Amino acid sequence: MAKSRSGVFEKSASELLNIFNASLPFDKKLYKEDIKGSIAHATMLANQNILAEDEAKKIVAGLKQVLEEIENGEFIFDISDEDIHMAVEKRLSQIIGEEIGGKLHTARSRNDQVALDFRLYTQKNNIEISLQIKEFIKTLLKIAKENTKTLLPGMTHLQHAQPINFAFHLLAYISMFKRDIERFEDSYKRADVLPLGCAALAGTPHSIDRDMVAKELGFSKVSLNCLDTVSDRDFALEILFNISTMMMHISRFAEELIIWSSSEFRFVTFSDEYSTGSSIMPQKKNPDVAELLRGKSGRVYGNMIALFTVLKALPLAYNKDMQEDKEAVFDSVETALICLKILNKAVETMTINKENMRKACEVGHLSATDLADYLVKKCKIPFREAHHITGSAVAYAQKLGVDISQMSLDELKKIDSRIGDDVTDFLNLEASMNARNSKGGTSTSSTLAQIATIEEWLK
Amino acid sequence: MAKSRSGVFEKSASELLNIFNASLPFDKKLYKEDIKGSIAHATMLANQNILAEDEAKKIVAGLKQVLEEIENGEFIFDISDEDIHMAVEKRLSQIIGEEIGGKLHTARSRNDQVALDFRLYTQKNNIEISLQIKEFIKTLLKIAKENTKTLLPGMTHLQHAQPINFAFHLLAYISMFKRDIERFEDSYKRADVLPLGCAALAGTPHSIDRDMVAKELGFSKVSLNCLDTVSDRDFALEILFNISTMMMHISRFAEELIIWSSSEFRFVTFSDEYSTGSSIMPQKKNPDVAELLRGKSGRVYGNMIALFTVLKALPLAYNKDMQEDKEAVFDSVETALICLKILNKAVETMTINKENMRKACEVGHLSATDLADYLVKKCKIPFREAHHITGSAVAYAQKLGVDISQMSLDELKKIDSRIGDDVTDFLNLEASMNARNSKGGTSTSSTLAQIATIEEWLK
Amino acid sequence: MAKSRSGVFEKSASELLNIFNASLPFDKKLYKEDIKGSIAHATMLANQNILAEDEAKKIVAGLKQVLEEIENGEFIFDISDEDIHMAVEKRLSQIIGEEIGGKLHTARSRNDQVALDFRLYTQKNNIEISLQIKEFIKTLLKIAKENTKTLLPGMTHLQHAQPINFAFHLLAYISMFKRDIERFEDSYKRADVLPLGCAALAGTPHSIDRDMVAKELGFSKVSLNCLDTVSDRDFALEILFNISTMMMHISRFAEELIIWSSSEFRFVTFSDEYSTGSSIMPQKKNPDVAELLRGKSGRVYGNMIALFTVLKALPLAYNKDMQEDKEAVFDSVETALICLKILNKAVETMTINKENMRKACEVGHLSATDLADYLVKKCKIPFREAHHITGSAVAYAQKLGVDISQMSLDELKKIDSRIGDDVTDFLNLEASMNARNSKGGTSTSSTLAQIATIEEWLK
Amino acid sequence: MAKSRSGVFEKSASELLNIFNASLPFDKKLYKEDIKGSIAHATMLANQNILAEDEAKKIVAGLKQVLEEIENGEFIFDISDEDIHMAVEKRLSQIIGEEIGGKLHTARSRNDQVALDFRLYTQKNNIEISLQIKEFIKTLLKIAKENTKTLLPGMTHLQHAQPINFAFHLLAYISMFKRDIERFEDSYKRADVLPLGCAALAGTPHSIDRDMVAKELGFSKVSLNCLDTVSDRDFALEILFNISTMMMHISRFAEELIIWSSSEFRFVTFSDEYSTGSSIMPQKKNPDVAELLRGKSGRVYGNMIALFTVLKALPLAYNKDMQEDKEAVFDSVETALICLKILNKAVETMTINKENMRKACEVGHLSATDLADYLVKKCKIPFREAHHITGSAVAYAQKLGVDISQMSLDELKKIDSRIGDDVTDFLNLEASMNARNSKGGTSTSSTLAQIATIEEWLK
Repeated sequence: MAKSRSGVFEKSASELLNIFNASLPFDKKLYKEDIKGSIAHATMLANQNILAEDEAKKIVAGLKQVLEEIENGEFIFDISDEDIHMAVEKRLSQIIGEEIGGKLHTARSRNDQVALDFRLYTQKNNIEISLQIKEFIKTLLKIAKENTKTLLPGMTHLQHAQPINFAFHLLAYISMFKRDIERFEDSYKRADVLPLGCAALAGTPHSIDRDMVAKELGFSKVSLNCLDTVSDRDFALEILFNISTMMMHISRFAEELIIWSSSEFRFVTFSDEYSTGSSIMPQKKNPDVAELLRGKSGRVYGNMIALFTVLKALPLAYNKDMQEDKEAVFDSVETALICLKILNKAVETMTINKENMRKACEVGHLSATDLADYLVKKCKIPFREAHHITGSAVAYAQKLGVDISQMSLDELKKIDSRIGDDVTDFLNLEASMNARNSKGGTSTSSTLAQIATIEEWLK
Repeated sequence: MAKSRSGVFEKSASELLNIFNASLPFDKKLYKEDIKGSIAHATMLANQNILAEDEAKKIVAGLKQVLEEIENGEFIFDISDEDIHMAVEKRLSQIIGEEIGGKLHTARSRNDQVALDFRLYTQKNNIEISLQIKEFIKTLLKIAKENTKTLLPGMTHLQHAQPINFAFHLLAYISMFKRDIERFEDSYKRADVLPLGCAALAGTPHSIDRDMVAKELGFSKVSLNCLDTVSDRDFALEILFNISTMMMHISRFAEELIIWSSSEFRFVTFSDEYSTGSSIMPQKKNPDVAELLRGKSGRVYGNMIALFTVLKALPLAYNKDMQEDKEAVFDSVETALICLKILNKAVETMTINKENMRKACEVGHLSATDLADYLVKKCKIPFREAHHITGSAVAYAQKLGVDISQMSLDELKKIDSRIGDDVTDFLNLEASMNARNSKGGTSTSSTLAQIATIEEWLK
Repeated sequence: MAKSRSGVFEKSASELLNIFNASLPFDKKLYKEDIKGSIAHATMLANQNILAEDEAKKIVAGLKQVLEEIENGEFIFDISDEDIHMAVEKRLSQIIGEEIGGKLHTARSRNDQVALDFRLYTQKNNIEISLQIKEFIKTLLKIAKENTKTLLPGMTHLQHAQPINFAFHLLAYISMFKRDIERFEDSYKRADVLPLGCAALAGTPHSIDRDMVAKELGFSKVSLNCLDTVSDRDFALEILFNISTMMMHISRFAEELIIWSSSEFRFVTFSDEYSTGSSIMPQKKNPDVAELLRGKSGRVYGNMIALFTVLKALPLAYNKDMQEDKEAVFDSVETALICLKILNKAVETMTINKENMRKACEVGHLSATDLADYLVKKCKIPFREAHHITGSAVAYAQKLGVDISQMSLDELKKIDSRIGDDVTDFLNLEASMNARNSKGGTSTSSTLAQIATIEEWLK
Repeated sequence: MAKSRSGVFEKSASELLNIFNASLPFDKKLYKEDIKGSIAHATMLANQNILAEDEAKKIVAGLKQVLEEIENGEFIFDISDEDIHMAVEKRLSQIIGEEIGGKLHTARSRNDQVALDFRLYTQKNNIEISLQIKEFIKTLLKIAKENTKTLLPGMTHLQHAQPINFAFHLLAYISMFKRDIERFEDSYKRADVLPLGCAALAGTPHSIDRDMVAKELGFSKVSLNCLDTVSDRDFALEILFNISTMMMHISRFAEELIIWSSSEFRFVTFSDEYSTGSSIMPQKKNPDVAELLRGKSGRVYGNMIALFTVLKALPLAYNKDMQEDKEAVFDSVETALICLKILNKAVETMTINKENMRKACEVGHLSATDLADYLVKKCKIPFREAHHITGSAVAYAQKLGVDISQMSLDELKKIDSRIGDDVTDFLNLEASMNARNSKGGTSTSSTLAQIATIEEWLK
């Protein structure tokens, strides 16, 4: 009989219930957090004379042995133990005896215990994911620094818009991932609260010292209200949201990498180590990595909506529905970590086909806005009129079969007599890119300033 | 080197790519479907003289040996094989030699192979889930037949509304689950289409016989267009939707069971075998089963939104993102099956506290509508006026501290002089319940008719 | 005071409650369905002698006047009427007097009334959307018939895979939309059930004739169980799901149209009438239509998850949460209809740049699979070996800087001595496309067969 | 012809495109933000000598007139103007002439303009929602202060667990809403970045001063990278997430209010002003407000998933799909605001039935944990053993038909001989509640400390 069943039960649980109810198959992942929490708890109980000093010592030693057994693969996970908490406690009692082992659960409940374990896991991974993002930012930054003059067509609506440089493009993603890190950090701070000591829902009559436990476990605060603490999964929603947002950013980058890998674009080429083949078409080198990265947005969105659904309309305090919180978070965390790792590698090893990027700039009248700006700046034509004149110029260029940047001065002057000889300086692609020199703009010097800002922040 | 990598690659895949890319850890679940499909494919190839008769025989024998090895646990799943298709084929070639084993993949691609395996899995589980629902309907029906006169308060807004019988209440759920079965059946029919023979995306130059394979594998049709076939996951969305809807129904039932198990209601009591305890509160018997059933709506909703996200805006035909389809479906299918099984058991073994249900009917003026109906029918008062008079009567009863069904005739007549002696027949709870004798209504006779309809349908 | 408040209330509703609670601002859209249902109800009541013949006549005439007033814009919608049901009934009573008007609500409740109105709306739009899809299929079919020989690169992973024809590509979408129609039709059948006559939750003591009302309103069946009927929103979930699936299909097509419109692809060009400009970049012609079509998958997914969330864990029977069903469905239905309409127009008027499609086929070694197939068929090499040889051939072609279809016979023979002179017939693009002549394949003749099947089905 | 169409177009947009493409029907809500942004932009342009001083003055005066016209309802919204930006600019040019009006759009694009307007809206509502939450917290706190000794059964699994006080229960919700405010504040800080000056995607060649505009509009920073800035909707996702989390909290509270309003619980009674009736059942007073509050979690979850779907896999920079961001956010913001307002009112005016709460505590052996704790503390029995003994005691009490708190000393001693006379002090309900005096616990004194913390924070 599982230990959570007191003498109030006349019959034992059915086999089916044991299987259905058990969280052990997935929450065993929390064994480290569980043992760490129990050690802190036992130490505090002794400090408060709730346990005798030597009882606590035995418990701590026993717990360390359990930890070792788990890490050595010697520990036998038995589904009828329900969860990692019961599994650890049962083994502890086998090692040090029921008499003392049975005292560890004094002044706590599984409700606050699981809240602790899960929060420790989430906090650890808030940090871990942030670190992985930072690694990837460094890779992007390295590439960026080599490409502040590499022209490629800036796009809106997947249509050529204005010439930009590749570093500037990468800095857009760096900016996104920087915000991601900031979100994980904010969530970390908000969740930096010890749940242990709330017991089932209402606190405990034992004279515990929660501040001591908090310090021991690295929390800076103790939770305010026990009923909330055992019911609260906001921290889990936050990590699910942060991961979803980050994976959305990754899906955007992945989409671009896939498009850029097509025969039509060929802006980048994935390395053989990070490309895949086809079982039937021998010529294929497929960007499976990028596709999986794009697709994995699905599972992390799904995990988020799953937990939101679970929590909807749950009365206080703990309800068993909340057991559904863990698999969603575990899956999203693991997805985030491996995606960051492989994205980093795939991007690091891919070839950037600068020539193709440059050639693409010669199509699509990328400097049309520059002509309009010229008309405004030099000819003092209101922007709206300049915009319309330039549109006609583009139509004319299309008829001639050339890009606007390649039109002769004569042809240009035909469009509007106010156009002067200095117009060509505006239509040149490099010039166009470097003209956008406003704060945050694409000019090489502005791009370098952005790089400097990121380098400063990384320190 | 994995076999899907042709001579076009100069370097082998990185370890990280192998791990990230591989679907083997989860798609090995499809081994039966994969081997079944390959046997049918090889048989057809021989029939069409694309394979020699004895080659096909060796392949079929080899595949059967692979099946046996997997089922005996002797098969070694190696993640560098990418997926179940490659894993099976590699082992086949080890058994019968590359020379012949290498011919099995003639005229097909993993794109149509996975479409087949996954569809076979989904179809099988459309049926399996339907059968499980049917089992549960039978349990509900059994209880219903014993409770066509068991009064309980029918509720709207969780407020007592009108007296109904418990069988009638259960028939509401039976109706929902019946619709669920119909949805699974419709999806089965729509997906009853052979995908194999589409090869990578465009069909094959080999003179295959798709109709023969369809017949072999139990499909009634062959898919219309190959490009669609390898890109299509509608059948997966459908099973995810059908399960979500069914789990939503279950969540509603679970919610009622939880509320009914509270001290305040005590309409039902779960058996010890399907109840759980608390690690700290010794008196607790918790309806964990019902709570998990309620909460598991989250994961199946999440799985559905995951696949919808994956498929959004995917260009044709196969993209690697689609590999993300399987885990979602596997998880929802397995969730559905175990939920149905345990719900069936928990409901079958729970105690129905008829006394408490009956007593609850005496609170909340359940027969107020009957008084209004009396005023309409017997006193010819327009419904709107009757509705308002009855509201005042209820307010009066509340002042007296009694339920309207317990008011004396004198008191009732004070409310409106048109009220006659025959009013008491209307206010009696059993009478009230049985008065609702319209088609689909709660009267015992109408309830029995509904039971009969369901029994007829079950045949 | 709103009429639903009986004499049991001492105080009237707060202004804020009226605003928050009212569904009138959106459910007024259901006025036609509401009046239609009330006319059928009144007619039946008279037929059953629950209303006098002349009372029913007055009610019907009054309702027709209300309908006219609404359609003429004369009707004053007053939010304190709560919903369309109350608004119509109040106006009816103003026209024909409270005495008779107050009798219309006999033997029904808003619970079954709204279930009716909403179901009528959903059914109507199941049909309407199907018709719109059919219109779009006809447009696609027209284009397909003109393009059974138009070569374009068939893609997987957005990489060139094998040469296909454009009609074959469009037939993939036709297949998807055909399944969509079948889903709407199945949902229509499942929802073809009259809810009226269920009253609040338990039926009614009045001797109503539900079959007569069903016939009047075009339903083929009467609902089985009243409690289920007033709680059931499966039909709403189904239309939300069907629309989501259809919009997912549209998002895939939209994605392709966007990619095909890029400078790099230029496979299609949207007409000026269905293109948009930029406020700053004069050269831009943007595929906004396709982008919106792609993006609108978001709102319909959102609407679906919204209703699933609402319904999760709702106890029986009607709960006010269910009022949240309508806006989600209205929005998805209207989105579906306008999207289909504009997609149809945009596709009808776009230019198909066959030359560019053709040219794209000369890149990416599209006939590599054909070489492999040649090695299998003609040289009797096992597929796996042929696959690897061809990969090396592609690598060799890349070194030479040519497409495999353009390699000389000499060069080809260098790859493998078993290659004969007849290989060139296999590598030609048209030949390659037409070689895939299996059922559902891309050969022109197979494509024509697919077109014929669709034409047959459309009849 | 809409102004965004330059001379590159030969034909005007179709009517259908205008309707489909236009965001004006919903983004007109942003008129204040749009005009505010344009005034700041024009002022800066003059300051930088891009506009003449008097041009800027005319523009500013014109914009103020447009604002007035909109607020007076004189402004004519014409769908062919596409969006609020074009609508305002067109009217401006009508007022002050094309010559000068046409200069306002210098050095900006609609891409950064909409990013600005939408961000201003979101920031304003981050604050507005926080304020509304704070108002509600004050209401809860007021009730809490009056109920620090009001006993009610603390529940887990909707089963009686331990006696708590009502203030403690409300403090759980206060804690949740406090976290909600902190999330809105964090999001505010993260979004405190000026987007204007990014133009279409790459910055502008005009020598603008973004810092000046930032200061003018109350932003503390200027955005880092233009490409990111026009593509970024993280701030919109954050408000959608924050609202979803808050509405989830509200749904939990609403669920409890609904259950507490049932006949079986009657812990609270909504006031008539915030209750609703039934059109058919005259006795009904329904908690519609709480049900709608619970149900509206659906729409805000839906809105969040909608935008996540839209953003998935969008290539940089602006794509028209992103227009789908606004309706989702508008709807969630408006939902949040009205929900907070009515929740505040409904809770403020509801009656708390302390007697019923107290009575409920006498059922369910609420002090069973206290008996176990007694056995641990006084009798030095290990917790696990004490837990089991107490379970048997509860089973025994059930047989006697009494609550454990009502068992006689004799009976108690029969359970275990180690039990002493002082046990009754532990089993008394008030004593039990007050015994849980650990930090965050339910004792009155701990509850008062929590109240003090919140009051401090509110300052």
